[in-house]
Amino acid sequence: MQINIDRLMADIERYAHYGKNDQGGVTRPSFSPADYEIRALFIKELEDMGLEVTIDGAANIWGKLKGTGKKQGSLVIGSHLDSVPNGGKYDGPLGVLMSKEIIQTLIENQVTFDHDLEIVSFTAEESNDFNLSTFGSRSFVGKLTEEMLEDVYDSKGTKLSHELKKAGGGFDKFPVMAGMKKDTKAFIELHIEQGQRLESKDISMAVIDKVVGTYRSKVRVIGQSNHSGTTMMEHRQDALTAAAEMVLEVERQCKNGHRRVVGTVGKLDVSPNAANIIPGQIDFILEVRGEREEDIQYTVSAIESAWKEIAINRKVKIQQQTFLDQKPVVLNEDIVKTLQNTANEMREPFMTLPSMAVHDAAHMASITKAAMVFVKSIDGKSHCPEELSLPEDIEKAGNLILKGIINLDQERFSKTMVL
Amino acid sequence: MQINIDRLMADIERYAHYGKNDQGGVTRPSFSPADYEIRALFIKELEDMGLEVTIDGAANIWGKLKGTGKKQGSLVIGSHLDSVPNGGKYDGPLGVLMSKEIIQTLIENQVTFDHDLEIVSFTAEESNDFNLSTFGSRSFVGKLTEEMLEDVYDSKGTKLSHELKKAGGGFDKFPVMAGMKKDTKAFIELHIEQGQRLESKDISMAVIDKVVGTYRSKVRVIGQSNHSGTTMMEHRQDALTAAAEMVLEVERQCKNGHRRVVGTVGKLDVSPNAANIIPGQIDFILEVRGEREEDIQYTVSAIESAWKEIAINRKVKIQQQTFLDQKPVVLNEDIVKTLQNTANEMREPFMTLPSMAVHDAAHMASITKAAMVFVKSIDGKSHCPEELSLPEDIEKAGNLILKGIINLDQERFSKTMVL
Repeated sequence: MQINIDRLMADIERYAHYGKNDQGGVTRPSFSPADYEIRALFIKELEDMGLEVTIDGAANIWGKLKGTGKKQGSLVIGSHLDSVPNGGKYDGPLGVLMSKEIIQTLIENQVTFDHDLEIVSFTAEESNDFNLSTFGSRSFVGKLTEEMLEDVYDSKGTKLSHELKKAGGGFDKFPVMAGMKKDTKAFIELHIEQGQRLESKDISMAVIDKVVGTYRSKVRVIGQSNHSGTTMMEHRQDALTAAAEMVLEVERQCKNGHRRVVGTVGKLDVSPNAANIIPGQIDFILEVRGEREEDIQYTVSAIESAWKEIAINRKVKIQQQTFLDQKPVVLNEDIVKTLQNTANEMREPFMTLPSMAVHDAAHMASITKAAMVFVKSIDGKSHCPEELSLPEDIEKAGNLILKGIINLDQERFSKTMVL
Repeated sequence: MQINIDRLMADIERYAHYGKNDQGGVTRPSFSPADYEIRALFIKELEDMGLEVTIDGAANIWGKLKGTGKKQGSLVIGSHLDSVPNGGKYDGPLGVLMSKEIIQTLIENQVTFDHDLEIVSFTAEESNDFNLSTFGSRSFVGKLTEEMLEDVYDSKGTKLSHELKKAGGGFDKFPVMAGMKKDTKAFIELHIEQGQRLESKDISMAVIDKVVGTYRSKVRVIGQSNHSGTTMMEHRQDALTAAAEMVLEVERQCKNGHRRVVGTVGKLDVSPNAANIIPGQIDFILEVRGEREEDIQYTVSAIESAWKEIAINRKVKIQQQTFLDQKPVVLNEDIVKTLQNTANEMREPFMTLPSMAVHDAAHMASITKAAMVFVKSIDGKSHCPEELSLPEDIEKAGNLILKGIINLDQERFSKTMVL
């Protein structure tokens, strides 16, 4: 039994028409017109497959294939259908459409599970105008509550609760949604890697056993803005040259620090930002991600102590405020083992990797046994029209999940596992 | 004979009320309501002093004290009354109000010149919404022509010609203005230093013998924007870390290059500028200023060749486009000598320095014998509410110009000088 890769690739192309833009990318944030269209399409297709469709409080879309009832609860597969502005075809839809393909394949092959098998498409996984990424999964697992969400508006002043209602969810459904958690026995998400670790080793797929932690702080460098002509080099307190050294220090610590971390300054603003004024203030965001909390902490400390010297040498002040400190998440060992053993049986090479980005699976891990599968990205490109994964790689990852979820239902590699 | 420093300081405070803002600064760009008010005040005060007031084509305001007629043409002193947004009280007005004070002192002491003596307040010396700095002096000397200015609008769509008319100038007066050049025999401008060279030596004033040249280019660094979590350190083409090295290289070359230059990156923009995306493109402006053209060229070349290596090492592309290449200006030796000898006679210490910024005097130098006097700035601050020069320093500089202009009229230190 194999998934039908041609049908899946056609599905990906078909879904990519919703929100397609002039630059060849996809702009389909949750609650955009294109999102409402794709929701209607997706629900109709699940119903046509004979699945029992539920829209939960967070407007996550669920489709259930009933099992024999021999085993309680559901095995869940899925991802998200929303995209970043001018994103690609794969980030999100690959996982959802692959789940649909897997269920279709099982139905066609008349395979019946002991558990119920569910597909889910989570709402607003990407950053969006409501400033709530992984909104659907965080709401589902109870990390976002009605109280926290009550007064959330987008930049146009639209209330989140209004969009939730419109999409078939709503706060009145939150209590029911809370009950659904108990029935969720496992969650597997397929996603593109969005990096180059697989490509650089020429491997199609990875089993993901961890999700990295993410640390972010707002950093302000305060120097003295002054005339660029009349202020001699030795009289300057240039906030930009100080920030330049600080940015390079982030890179140095993450590259040569012998810890498995990545560190980035992605956002940086210069003030007053004029050609003839020495910058007086720089605001930037420091991000450090790592598999192990101690690696993140060690790296941030090393960066900070190097920064202190820069501040002294350059007579600038540094203010820093941590605003995100997401701990690393260990994914479920039983599911990871099941996927690894399945891949071994298939005689397919794979890697076991941590996910360097947060996905819905990281939140699902707080209420159920969760793991992920990554498929190779080409050139590591993501969140852009050039985002690409190849059918031959996608097919292998799809068959891994197809066979893995069967093994999971049969508890073949998880004797001690109570699903 | 001495200037009346108390009257001058009171004038500076009085004029600073026009365009005074909440932050304690002065916002009085040319053609703003505050500028129109101060123009009316200034014209009235010149008329009350008995001067013959002329508004030229560029809306520069001139006031003439007639001389004996023994010598032809005018000696001119002045500066500008417009300010940057949220600027200080001294940049511009000090030179204009000091000129008014000098003429007042001469009138009170019944000193009559052989030449005519004129005060001028140039229009729009500072960068402004029409994107034309030193507009008044450049128009006066013929560097800006009617044709070049015809289709100039501000950001609100107001035509420059409309504002010129409103302020009493206009393109129809440009031919008359062109004729006025011939009568201008000398120009001396007093200005604050806007740097810390005088303060660091504890000297009140400087005679300015040169104006530095300014080189500016637009620089674009093209890397690869990518996910900050999933892209390992070794797979990155981070445009910001490359730009950080480039910015530090500018500083290194200007600080340790043993050439008398200053170099600045004051404007820098990151794209896409998001915390979780490795910067794919940086746009910045490189500025190098120096007394000697060869120093500027040497420094820019040294920077560029270092940048080439950075581009290779970091796998980024660098695009560069020069958009300003203002050559250094040598000010008039006779006037510089007259001012130096006058200061020596006064037994006042002074420095002879280049101006590191362009002033109206640099343009006036193209049509007449021009020089400048700088007065000490406190903490080098300028273009900000904290801009400050002290009465004791201002008084010395004022008396230097008062006595210097008398010596110039009498040609005491300029035997060979045909004014």
